[in-house]
Amino acid sequence: MPHIPLDPQLPGIRSLMAFRPETAVPLNHLAQTLLRGPSSLTVGERELIAAVVSNGNECRFCHGSHAAAAAETLDGGRAVVDAACAGVDDAPVGEKLKALLRIALATRETGRAVTPELIAAARAEGATDVELHDTVLIAAAFCMFNRYVDGLATVAPDDQAVYDQIGKVLAAEGYGR
Amino acid sequence: MPHIPLDPQLPGIRSLMAFRPETAVPLNHLAQTLLRGPSSLTVGERELIAAVVSNGNECRFCHGSHAAAAAETLDGGRAVVDAACAGVDDAPVGEKLKALLRIALATRETGRAVTPELIAAARAEGATDVELHDTVLIAAAFCMFNRYVDGLATVAPDDQAVYDQIGKVLAAEGYGR
Repeated sequence: MPHIPLDPQLPGIRSLMAFRPETAVPLNHLAQTLLRGPSSLTVGERELIAAVVSNGNECRFCHGSHAAAAAETLDGGRAVVDAACAGVDDAPVGEKLKALLRIALATRETGRAVTPELIAAARAEGATDVELHDTVLIAAAFCMFNRYVDGLATVAPDDQAVYDQIGKVLAAEGYGR
Repeated sequence: MPHIPLDPQLPGIRSLMAFRPETAVPLNHLAQTLLRGPSSLTVGERELIAAVVSNGNECRFCHGSHAAAAAETLDGGRAVVDAACAGVDDAPVGEKLKALLRIALATRETGRAVTPELIAAARAEGATDVELHDTVLIAAAFCMFNRYVDGLATVAPDDQAVYDQIGKVLAAEGYGR
């Protein structure tokens, strides 16, 4: 049960955004800029970073939603997303994306875990300055979103079909601006 | 040394905001809404939550900056801020603020650490739904800001006078909107 009175019709962060529209605006703007704005990373790659970090933080609602959005948008779909969440090293994705996912998972632990070696490994696979920046900020942002959603004990649906539908909407419409 | 090329004249998150102005806009908007927007929590109480969480995350730049902003704005000033960062239980602040700081520190660990008991304890001291919401989101947001600042290895000045000056500017001007 949520810690504060939230609309029971709305799952996860949607209930919080309805409760506090003042903070919903910059939160959606941030997500839209990072995950849908102009970038040399594809939408699928960015949603995969969000899914892998949310999985690491054991945030069921965010992992379910962003894994579904990544499955809609990433080459290889659901099988690749699930493999990356299970372990980056053996995931069937390119070496640059693996290196960025390792940076994202380090960021998830603490910013200080992002070592010069992790950065150099990503650069060796072609990662640019902006890609490195955005990977760290996407991972950091999901450390916020995950804590926001779980810290107020929002409802995470049990039904995978709900997440599949959220994924389709996020893939088609993004984050509202 | 920062992991990406940043303006060496700018410390901490300021260098990142200059590097990527597209994401700076929603980040500043979020900070301004949470820390300066209309609230039944004072600016000093909200800056103290930011300082205590940043201290817990060992983010030197964010802790230095928000502890200084809290010292400028909170009743009791620097001594109260330093005491709260050293340990909530013995800090010379009211019971409601202590209960909110405990929720913030739980959020820092993981959202799932915010128990019904922590929420009930804050409500028993008079905390409102919006105060509970904002405490969790401020704590979650600083879990993002701290990882962003440290994950890209931005420069944290050694000189306390720099943070004191940042604190004065944040107290007087807020976050740019």
